[in-house]
Amino acid sequence: MSVYLDNAATSFPKPDAVYEAVDYALRRVGVGPGRGGYRRSIEATRIVFETREAVATLLGVADSSRVVFTHSATEALNLAVSGLLSPGDHVVTTTVEHNSLVRPLHAASGRGVEVTSVAADRRGFVTPDAVAAAMRPNTRLVALSHCSNVTGALQPVEEIGAEVKKRGALLLVDAAQSAGMIPLDAPAIGIDLLAAPGHKGLFGPQGTGILYVADGVELTPLMVGGTGVHSSDEEQPAAMPERYESGTLNTPGIAGLGAGVAFIERTGISAIRERETSLVRQILEGLAGMRRVTVHGPAADEPRGSVVSFSATDTDPQTIGFRLDHDHDISVRVGLHCAPSAHRTIGTYPTGTVRVSPGFFTTDNEVELFLRALREIVGG
Amino acid sequence: MSVYLDNAATSFPKPDAVYEAVDYALRRVGVGPGRGGYRRSIEATRIVFETREAVATLLGVADSSRVVFTHSATEALNLAVSGLLSPGDHVVTTTVEHNSLVRPLHAASGRGVEVTSVAADRRGFVTPDAVAAAMRPNTRLVALSHCSNVTGALQPVEEIGAEVKKRGALLLVDAAQSAGMIPLDAPAIGIDLLAAPGHKGLFGPQGTGILYVADGVELTPLMVGGTGVHSSDEEQPAAMPERYESGTLNTPGIAGLGAGVAFIERTGISAIRERETSLVRQILEGLAGMRRVTVHGPAADEPRGSVVSFSATDTDPQTIGFRLDHDHDISVRVGLHCAPSAHRTIGTYPTGTVRVSPGFFTTDNEVELFLRALREIVGG
Repeated sequence: MSVYLDNAATSFPKPDAVYEAVDYALRRVGVGPGRGGYRRSIEATRIVFETREAVATLLGVADSSRVVFTHSATEALNLAVSGLLSPGDHVVTTTVEHNSLVRPLHAASGRGVEVTSVAADRRGFVTPDAVAAAMRPNTRLVALSHCSNVTGALQPVEEIGAEVKKRGALLLVDAAQSAGMIPLDAPAIGIDLLAAPGHKGLFGPQGTGILYVADGVELTPLMVGGTGVHSSDEEQPAAMPERYESGTLNTPGIAGLGAGVAFIERTGISAIRERETSLVRQILEGLAGMRRVTVHGPAADEPRGSVVSFSATDTDPQTIGFRLDHDHDISVRVGLHCAPSAHRTIGTYPTGTVRVSPGFFTTDNEVELFLRALREIVGG
Repeated sequence: MSVYLDNAATSFPKPDAVYEAVDYALRRVGVGPGRGGYRRSIEATRIVFETREAVATLLGVADSSRVVFTHSATEALNLAVSGLLSPGDHVVTTTVEHNSLVRPLHAASGRGVEVTSVAADRRGFVTPDAVAAAMRPNTRLVALSHCSNVTGALQPVEEIGAEVKKRGALLLVDAAQSAGMIPLDAPAIGIDLLAAPGHKGLFGPQGTGILYVADGVELTPLMVGGTGVHSSDEEQPAAMPERYESGTLNTPGIAGLGAGVAFIERTGISAIRERETSLVRQILEGLAGMRRVTVHGPAADEPRGSVVSFSATDTDPQTIGFRLDHDHDISVRVGLHCAPSAHRTIGTYPTGTVRVSPGFFTTDNEVELFLRALREIVGG
């Protein structure tokens, strides 16, 4: 039996409706939205519009034209960072971010943007006070992940949002490990920019992502080109969402994403959260019983998402990952998880950790199989 | 019966193997390549590698790591243009380009890059001499489409390539309307950068594209972020192709693209070219028999791809498109086709044209139905 515990990379399996929606878009619709006026393309327009509406509703956003489709959270974060910041701007971020945010900020710093990284504690948390203290008069943006992809630590984004608003800056949240898994009302929290992949908690296929851009926030597009509107201008059109959606959209992917978000709506995001929390608790309890294993990150009763990182005395993460896969057909992720600074913060650099991330479809039995296999590998 | 004649926007239908490959990648593989070391992700790595190899082979490229996966030709063109050009550089382009090239060049001109547009003739052709004459000592790039998406005119890229090499500049070819349809040996022609969508002649799904980057050509990445390699660096890694492929790849899309390119290999690109040429000839002959219809672009015996544009006396393109769709269920494209300057060049601005683009799977009978319907609409 194959056990998949790397949902933080890509959720798998997807609801059946996702596979079916992709296939329908490919075989029956075939074309993209808006590019022609004929019936077939109107059906594509409907698919894209309904997905946009569903994502907006999930995030508490009233005007769905503020939800931009990208092809990944990485594209969304690049668009947000490079599109917003100018030389002389100051940004506050944290020491526990993914490279998809770290590298765009590093590139911005090469263009005259100043970046301050607030240190998280050993469990991966930053405090609203520390973020507030790092802000300056020229702080244009506070950029951080909602949930760490290494420790699962869930940052207090509501309180951070309040501090950011108080000081007149903008808040960018990387929701890669929380969108679709943890209720998130972007406008209520004061989020100005929210990036999320389509293929993790939102159950869409790879090749999809979104960027929510709050009303009034203006970005320089990352890409310009054909948009199907205002064709006669050399300038990129100003209309949302086309301004940030140049080129042919990934309609089959967006169809799948729509089916994924519809599944979340039907199931209820609190039911998803509850189920994943229970699986995480089962994992943490199992790991707590292994004396050679150290869990890195928040305790079970602290704010956390569906990611658990650990290491073991005498057996390195690579060996654990290899043996779980080779001897037991259990997929976990090992190493730095594209977040080296997070590992420096929690003291697991450069070896990294073993990361286990269950998903909504993971069973208790699969977790049990994983725990049994791990006990066999690390001993005791 | 539904007749689809907008293959220049998206090829439809695809070979069955394309739908099956996407479904297999979604249902059976599920995850992305390289991000974990487990078996499932190794299968994803194989899919992506084999597609990369197949695309490289199709383009005559020996080292497949020089083929970068993007999500559209638009992304590929933005990466090529914004990644290559610096203030003070000069670019030569033409007056018949798509907005996916026009707009990135226009944006570059706002950053101190000089752009010269060589005028095409009324049929859409530019001459190698005119391109050569427009080049200056500081010309860094000559950027043009291989085949016009408005007229179907096929530019003499071999001869232009020779002039470009002679003068030490680089050649960027937008192969949106030729890749997979017209044999193209990129290194032999001296192409340094070649952008193509996956979802047109290559038969892949929407949400895929490629940029070929010749050995020695160095671009600033459009996006930076997680690459799964060299995770511990804040700098984007230098290794190809990861340098330009940040974020989770569209593995199901790439799987479909691989199946599409495999179909081209099996069928033979010359057989595809021959079939499409025969369909275009049938269309041109039919249109020639309608006295109210004017074809814009090359004659049947001039170098041309699979795109035909026309207009009619007394009936505007929008009306023709509407009636073809509404009364006959025939999908064509009308208007400016995201290439306003091309219409200015051929004298069809601002009304645009009706564009008909058959594909490999179009039947003679479908073309006949279109011609009959059009005769009914425009009269005589």
